[in-house]
Amino acid sequence: MIPSIFDAALAARVQHALDRKTKPTGALGRLESVGLQLALIQGREVPRLEEPQLVVFAADHGIAARGVSAYPGVVTRQMVQNMLAGGAAVSVLARQHGLALTIVDCGVRHVFSPRPGLVIAKVAYGSADPLAGPAMTAAQCEAAMANGDRLLCDLPGNALLLGEMGIGNTSAASLLMARLTGRPLAECVGRGTGLDDAGLARKRAVLEQALAVNASARAPLQVLATLGGLEIATMTGAVLRAARERRVILVDGFITTAAVAVAAALAPAVLECCVFAHASAETGHARWLADLGVQPLLDLDLRLGEGSGAALAWPLLESACRILAEMASFEAAGVSDRAG
Amino acid sequence: MIPSIFDAALAARVQHALDRKTKPTGALGRLESVGLQLALIQGREVPRLEEPQLVVFAADHGIAARGVSAYPGVVTRQMVQNMLAGGAAVSVLARQHGLALTIVDCGVRHVFSPRPGLVIAKVAYGSADPLAGPAMTAAQCEAAMANGDRLLCDLPGNALLLGEMGIGNTSAASLLMARLTGRPLAECVGRGTGLDDAGLARKRAVLEQALAVNASARAPLQVLATLGGLEIATMTGAVLRAARERRVILVDGFITTAAVAVAAALAPAVLECCVFAHASAETGHARWLADLGVQPLLDLDLRLGEGSGAALAWPLLESACRILAEMASFEAAGVSDRAG
Repeated sequence: MIPSIFDAALAARVQHALDRKTKPTGALGRLESVGLQLALIQGREVPRLEEPQLVVFAADHGIAARGVSAYPGVVTRQMVQNMLAGGAAVSVLARQHGLALTIVDCGVRHVFSPRPGLVIAKVAYGSADPLAGPAMTAAQCEAAMANGDRLLCDLPGNALLLGEMGIGNTSAASLLMARLTGRPLAECVGRGTGLDDAGLARKRAVLEQALAVNASARAPLQVLATLGGLEIATMTGAVLRAARERRVILVDGFITTAAVAVAAALAPAVLECCVFAHASAETGHARWLADLGVQPLLDLDLRLGEGSGAALAWPLLESACRILAEMASFEAAGVSDRAG
Repeated sequence: MIPSIFDAALAARVQHALDRKTKPTGALGRLESVGLQLALIQGREVPRLEEPQLVVFAADHGIAARGVSAYPGVVTRQMVQNMLAGGAAVSVLARQHGLALTIVDCGVRHVFSPRPGLVIAKVAYGSADPLAGPAMTAAQCEAAMANGDRLLCDLPGNALLLGEMGIGNTSAASLLMARLTGRPLAECVGRGTGLDDAGLARKRAVLEQALAVNASARAPLQVLATLGGLEIATMTGAVLRAARERRVILVDGFITTAAVAVAAALAPAVLECCVFAHASAETGHARWLADLGVQPLLDLDLRLGEGSGAALAWPLLESACRILAEMASFEAAGVSDRAG
């Protein structure tokens, strides 16, 4: 059970402060609503973002062997290495915005040597094929969630940016979306990293089978274990802990939304701590956000994952804080307010 | 005459570089198209943004006396002072992103003492009432444009972010939109800083009269002089010069779009140097962008002006450059590309 962050008296004070800033009421649009949300998360009138942590949760997926991705499974570990070497999109964007970047091996099919920026929290060498049974056992899923919880406790700061890497993980996210929202699978499945029409048709057929094999899974944790993946389960644990600690959670694209949706199914107040960075180009993402009743900040036709969209949206959160902290009021600046 | 920046060979090289970066083809969406555009503007494969200049063009408007704004005309000068003192939204956002901020008095109804950050390029103490004749004489309009040209030449760097301040200037921009696009006035007029329904109806009626009084103005420069304003004319001159120098021009909201639209009517290649920061909440802006055939980066329900939207979009341009400069290729990172 995670309590709601809502505090009517604080919300009224923050709204009043926003309305007295030297601008027409509401003229900063979404920046104002984000500022209010950050204030409520932190329980203070002037929110401050400290030591933001971009965490990339990585794992392999048994379902990848079914040909549901345009890329071979080996790319998961190669991209982890690329991220650690500083050459991936998320590495570049994290550097740009001063975000601490941590890559978490939640279940990559590879043994990494220890190195700075890499956390080993491996539960298995990839999840199992959900066409042959559950993707994870209940114990594996629980272990991954506990890893996420522990990881988050060890990280400093008050903001978590979610990222992920895992060939096959749009399939896992689509399965979670279909089961959690009840939407037809076709509305939940997209081209991932770039399937063509034939590939997309094959992916749909494979995912239909996975849903049928795991038809009895209905409770959120069961759904996560049978249809999810190790990085999604680890992320779910981290998200629950972050919300409990009232950290700001900046959600990236389709796969990170899956982890948040599972967490919100377990504890709805989680969503109050989440800012949704963008609507991705992956089929289903915009719909899922609408089902969750949330509005993304950006719409830049991104479909990379890694946390790249979260990193791109980050300066908007900083701006929202600065508006509250630094903008003058009509009174302080000696600016005439409107007549009415 | 401003030549097109398009260079097919360079475009192909940049597109190839983007496609070899460690990500699925096109997965960074709009960031990739912006990166390509910046490369073409600068005529090199890896664009770099240097000493970005956010310039706020300020002036008063004769039409403000007709009750077309929710705020009194004195707010123009008060907001200029607020910007110089660092308390306006644009001051806060410029600080956040390391943007040099210059306020230009193009025609404010006030005598400012000289101070750092303020450029005096005053052509008159506000434009005239377009219900009583042209808002500016041809000579005033020409002088303002020459000021913009000169101002730009004096500014360092290779990127110009457009901002503006002027009570009444959504009216001037609506008039320019109606005349330049041929759209019905109702599609071009919005609530500005926050008119109610009665105020909006009054604004429409006033603007209909202004269009009727200046019915014969059809050529772009004539339209600008009769229906525009001193800050819009100065900005038009600056935009033409910036495009000639192949600076990146980051356009803010409705009023800055008006200046760009006039410049593009005079020299269509101007648009190739423009990145449109956002679609504002002001009625007509999204339509005008569509008419110009351009796509904005953000849609955050902003309607403040000042250059605030341009400042918010700025980090995306930086990201686009960094992607081209810093991301690893599949080859360099040893990451497997897709099979196909």
